[in-house]
Amino acid sequence: MTEFVRSGARAAHSLRPVRITRNYTIHAEGSVLIEFGATRVLCTASVEERVPPHKRGSGEGWVTAEYGMLPRATHTRSDREAARGKQSGRTQEIQRLIGRSLRAVFDLKKLGERTIQLDCDVIQADGGTRTAAITGAFVAAQDAVNGLLKAGKITETPITAAVAAISVGLVQGTPLLDLEYTEDSACDTDMNVVMTGAGHFVEVQGTAEGVAFTRAEMDQLLGLAEKGISELMVLQQQSLSK
Amino acid sequence: MTEFVRSGARAAHSLRPVRITRNYTIHAEGSVLIEFGATRVLCTASVEERVPPHKRGSGEGWVTAEYGMLPRATHTRSDREAARGKQSGRTQEIQRLIGRSLRAVFDLKKLGERTIQLDCDVIQADGGTRTAAITGAFVAAQDAVNGLLKAGKITETPITAAVAAISVGLVQGTPLLDLEYTEDSACDTDMNVVMTGAGHFVEVQGTAEGVAFTRAEMDQLLGLAEKGISELMVLQQQSLSK
Amino acid sequence: MTEFVRSGARAAHSLRPVRITRNYTIHAEGSVLIEFGATRVLCTASVEERVPPHKRGSGEGWVTAEYGMLPRATHTRSDREAARGKQSGRTQEIQRLIGRSLRAVFDLKKLGERTIQLDCDVIQADGGTRTAAITGAFVAAQDAVNGLLKAGKITETPITAAVAAISVGLVQGTPLLDLEYTEDSACDTDMNVVMTGAGHFVEVQGTAEGVAFTRAEMDQLLGLAEKGISELMVLQQQSLSK
Amino acid sequence: MTEFVRSGARAAHSLRPVRITRNYTIHAEGSVLIEFGATRVLCTASVEERVPPHKRGSGEGWVTAEYGMLPRATHTRSDREAARGKQSGRTQEIQRLIGRSLRAVFDLKKLGERTIQLDCDVIQADGGTRTAAITGAFVAAQDAVNGLLKAGKITETPITAAVAAISVGLVQGTPLLDLEYTEDSACDTDMNVVMTGAGHFVEVQGTAEGVAFTRAEMDQLLGLAEKGISELMVLQQQSLSK
Amino acid sequence: MTEFVRSGARAAHSLRPVRITRNYTIHAEGSVLIEFGATRVLCTASVEERVPPHKRGSGEGWVTAEYGMLPRATHTRSDREAARGKQSGRTQEIQRLIGRSLRAVFDLKKLGERTIQLDCDVIQADGGTRTAAITGAFVAAQDAVNGLLKAGKITETPITAAVAAISVGLVQGTPLLDLEYTEDSACDTDMNVVMTGAGHFVEVQGTAEGVAFTRAEMDQLLGLAEKGISELMVLQQQSLSK
Amino acid sequence: MTEFVRSGARAAHSLRPVRITRNYTIHAEGSVLIEFGATRVLCTASVEERVPPHKRGSGEGWVTAEYGMLPRATHTRSDREAARGKQSGRTQEIQRLIGRSLRAVFDLKKLGERTIQLDCDVIQADGGTRTAAITGAFVAAQDAVNGLLKAGKITETPITAAVAAISVGLVQGTPLLDLEYTEDSACDTDMNVVMTGAGHFVEVQGTAEGVAFTRAEMDQLLGLAEKGISELMVLQQQSLSK
Repeated sequence: MTEFVRSGARAAHSLRPVRITRNYTIHAEGSVLIEFGATRVLCTASVEERVPPHKRGSGEGWVTAEYGMLPRATHTRSDREAARGKQSGRTQEIQRLIGRSLRAVFDLKKLGERTIQLDCDVIQADGGTRTAAITGAFVAAQDAVNGLLKAGKITETPITAAVAAISVGLVQGTPLLDLEYTEDSACDTDMNVVMTGAGHFVEVQGTAEGVAFTRAEMDQLLGLAEKGISELMVLQQQSLSK
Repeated sequence: MTEFVRSGARAAHSLRPVRITRNYTIHAEGSVLIEFGATRVLCTASVEERVPPHKRGSGEGWVTAEYGMLPRATHTRSDREAARGKQSGRTQEIQRLIGRSLRAVFDLKKLGERTIQLDCDVIQADGGTRTAAITGAFVAAQDAVNGLLKAGKITETPITAAVAAISVGLVQGTPLLDLEYTEDSACDTDMNVVMTGAGHFVEVQGTAEGVAFTRAEMDQLLGLAEKGISELMVLQQQSLSK
Repeated sequence: MTEFVRSGARAAHSLRPVRITRNYTIHAEGSVLIEFGATRVLCTASVEERVPPHKRGSGEGWVTAEYGMLPRATHTRSDREAARGKQSGRTQEIQRLIGRSLRAVFDLKKLGERTIQLDCDVIQADGGTRTAAITGAFVAAQDAVNGLLKAGKITETPITAAVAAISVGLVQGTPLLDLEYTEDSACDTDMNVVMTGAGHFVEVQGTAEGVAFTRAEMDQLLGLAEKGISELMVLQQQSLSK
Repeated sequence: MTEFVRSGARAAHSLRPVRITRNYTIHAEGSVLIEFGATRVLCTASVEERVPPHKRGSGEGWVTAEYGMLPRATHTRSDREAARGKQSGRTQEIQRLIGRSLRAVFDLKKLGERTIQLDCDVIQADGGTRTAAITGAFVAAQDAVNGLLKAGKITETPITAAVAAISVGLVQGTPLLDLEYTEDSACDTDMNVVMTGAGHFVEVQGTAEGVAFTRAEMDQLLGLAEKGISELMVLQQQSLSK
Repeated sequence: MTEFVRSGARAAHSLRPVRITRNYTIHAEGSVLIEFGATRVLCTASVEERVPPHKRGSGEGWVTAEYGMLPRATHTRSDREAARGKQSGRTQEIQRLIGRSLRAVFDLKKLGERTIQLDCDVIQADGGTRTAAITGAFVAAQDAVNGLLKAGKITETPITAAVAAISVGLVQGTPLLDLEYTEDSACDTDMNVVMTGAGHFVEVQGTAEGVAFTRAEMDQLLGLAEKGISELMVLQQQSLSK
Repeated sequence: MTEFVRSGARAAHSLRPVRITRNYTIHAEGSVLIEFGATRVLCTASVEERVPPHKRGSGEGWVTAEYGMLPRATHTRSDREAARGKQSGRTQEIQRLIGRSLRAVFDLKKLGERTIQLDCDVIQADGGTRTAAITGAFVAAQDAVNGLLKAGKITETPITAAVAAISVGLVQGTPLLDLEYTEDSACDTDMNVVMTGAGHFVEVQGTAEGVAFTRAEMDQLLGLAEKGISELMVLQQQSLSK
């Protein structure tokens, strides 16, 4: 079996070029454009001085996310969810994942009774939109938290660690890091991994699209993901230190 | 740290009593009540001689699932989704998981242009409803396939392997097999694992509800899941051989 | 004209075998599986310590019902209402009927400002699901009320009488009691009758499906219904006295 | 017990003044304004040269109805159903009743593969809107059928009999014909009766709003309804003969 | 180019016969049937002693409108919006226009914290329904305000001027006042103009349906609209002075 | 009265800096980011080889538009329409305006039976989003048409003229060109004007937000709009000639 050759001669264990642009738009408390190669996701963090019903009076805050894709972010146009009148199951699954991932690094008590709403909108899609969204949303959330600290609304950061995410997969038997769209379509196994700055797992979602995968393959993929996420965290910190 | 004590003095690595009742209702081509302890899910398989638009004319069939919960399957009554006018994100996530898991063991070409629709309805919930649903849906699907074979509509089984699922989790540091509701609520990490009869993974979905988990903890949990699923597969086969 | 012959040689004026199983599930304040032959309906009663807006501050309680059918309760699979995003007109009509029937035997003042929510879910359908639902819901409601009395939340029962329901119809000119599905499909007139323990009518809903019916035929049908309902009330009381 | 006194000194067994205005609007194939006292319902019949899916290719036609109420047809404004995004259970129940009632006097084979769509819109409500709607819809349907006959699209009328409807009820023990709003609100039993020109029943829907009713009371109410409906049928025929 | 000939030999600059019938229905605080030729719109004004959230506690009232069309108001039946489950874009556009137009002549402070809800329902359509609706809604609103003044709920009228509306258009190069349906379908430019009693503009909405229009054509159309609206205002005042 | 001073010392008759970036994203047949100052709208044109039902078999094509706003395009976050399950009246009004404006410069016969779908998504809002959308959508549509010509799918351009749009308004009595958000909020009259390259009007939508406006004021505003639009058309052509 010959090894799968990636576009642009990218190595199997390499991320695509990642770019993180802070303050991409002017109104949001945090606004980050994150690019994983041709995938571009705008992540904004909005601070609202109220919480959903299940948190009212609890002294705790809330962190939640919504995800969307512009109709022509994709190769062929997809229906506008607002026009169809509902979000797809895929959209809901992704926005729930983003929300859980971010909450995993938030101490909601320290946030106080306010909400950080993360909106992740895909401007252009080429695979890995959910992992780019999580990685970018963390930077936007950090900016929003910094604003709260600067304004004296909170005195201590509620963020307990960084969080980032990457996809890995098996394509023709080769474990690949950071799948682009054509790889994602061809892969046998697709895994999205979310980790904290401490190197622990927040989410592992592995799916056999074609052939089921072995324990050994899973171990390989997890190793690759750990490597990619640690690189993403360096890029998050570089961006935040600018 | 003292070890977590389970209800009924169940061992950490033990399944709850599992019961699989075939032909539970009379109309469906496959109809299975599966019980994991107090969790009871009715899984029916309906054969329809048509396929969704994306499969028309392909010569291939389709396998899909829907999931629901009776309003008072739970401790406190939950809203009826039909009355609210939409399925929750959680419901959609689960039914997509069930559908993918079953398709993983189907050769859709051999099924021919027909659909097997799996309906998994929770009569009573006590944790693990999605894993019970997958495990029971496989038995219902097998009955439906047997009916197609007997009727001469297909000559070769489209089922390539068994599939079953179990939840595992870390509660107060103890890895537990087959979480019931109170354990699920208290756990730090919750993992749903779907495997084939060949011992390979179809889905691994691990989520840190509280503290993020380590690679070592993940390995422990996967081991426990492998053990539980192999036991479930014995029970599936016993039930099918009656 | 030869007389219509019923399945299982059932007499025209006979009920199908009726079974009432209390405590069918564990979470609800009342939980009853009622079977009219092959028709099986799970009726749960949930007590909620709040009332809908139109009763707030009135000192009165509320009794209401919802009805659903599992997709494969029927011969051919019917769409899941939660997935379609709305309840059919038929479903709404039935659940309004169940709610009115139960409220007819409740003194809402004596219930206090709380709601009894009745959920009637059809597990298997073979005609008469709405009448089975009313008959079973009464038993579930009685169990819920007994729980409130035992807990000292109310001191006097708000239930003023028993309530039960049966279908009757004209099939090929023969008046039949308790129609099963094939009879219901073939009948010219279909009537659902709801009565109290005092032998009075709560609802009479007669519909000519084919030929319009005469006053004399209506009288025959009402007589048959009275007979059937008095038998159902004996079964309700036997079940409740266990 | 003193007898209930009706507004305008109306006798217990009298209809309100009924007015039937044909050709009330210009576009519909049948267009009838029907007034039962202050209740005013516009009934239009639209002929469409297609049938719903379940009748396609059957050689048979279809007759169906929709019902609506202008927001300020009532004492206090009710929400516009189009703005709320769904029809209430009450609306659906009524439009299903109107449809069934009209189909009871149609030979769908003779109609040919076309649909008569009846729209019954309440301009002003004062009780009895559904019975006025059925009675007026029959006249509109007759006009539409006459148009089809005149145009040579059908050669034989598909209408097998007249159909009309009236409400009756028990108010303070007095059986009343044709309830207006204040009587309807105060009544213990409310019954809607639909009959054909042959004096047979199409629908009988009796509901105990307060106290359950006896067989004797029901007999009284049915007698009253028969009287009222025969008067309505005279008025229908007078209107159609103009 | 020959001049376009209007139905009934109407002059290009003439309105259709306009009739305004007050107190058309009995329940609403203002109820006006307005007819522009064959176009008939029922406009009711309902006074509600509460305001929407964005006005609560402001000391100001609110004026808003809803618009609907009976399914068979038109040549061919249009779907019932309540049954389809949503209002069309056209409906929403029109009701927003009516609301803005009426608010333009209301001093919301003087209205006090209450709402005037205008419902404009088209009984029969022949072009110009939105302009008839605005013109009729003003009369209904005036009646509702007069009722509030008479009841002593307000001491000063919140109405600052009359408001009325008309359509104008270019059909085959001829500027026409008050387009009926066949003209509207044929026109190149269609303009709806809303003006106050002071002769100022509230809304000008001109649309090129076919060929784009010049500044000179626009000037002609505006002049025609001014003439028509001043005539409508005379009719409004005559109706109100009865 | 002192004259209103604009931000950045912009003259009353000046546009904000306008930037048009073609090929902003990679998948769409036309993809344009248009900026009017801080307002940024992404306009994509998608070519689909099918037409909506009302054009099937007509030999004609269709041009239509959808409009959306990212939740945090605005000062305070607005609800995501996909999550709320419907598009607001404002959204529908705007997308209908964009569609009509573009169709005004298309010869649908020459387009052939295909659809150009324009998606206008607001990335950042600061007033004038609908006029920026129309102006940018024209450039995207031109790119899509050029692609069709280059691919030989059409041999003649279906575009008959350029189209562009601008807002004008009266703020404290001063007529201003190209309103930004703060001006729009403060203005008495707001007018959106759409014109073709021939200097003719496609749409004029003037609304008195506060005081009604005079004919003289309207004339001033139209003059200002003509000036602004002719400048925009130069920018469109410069962009397209790159």
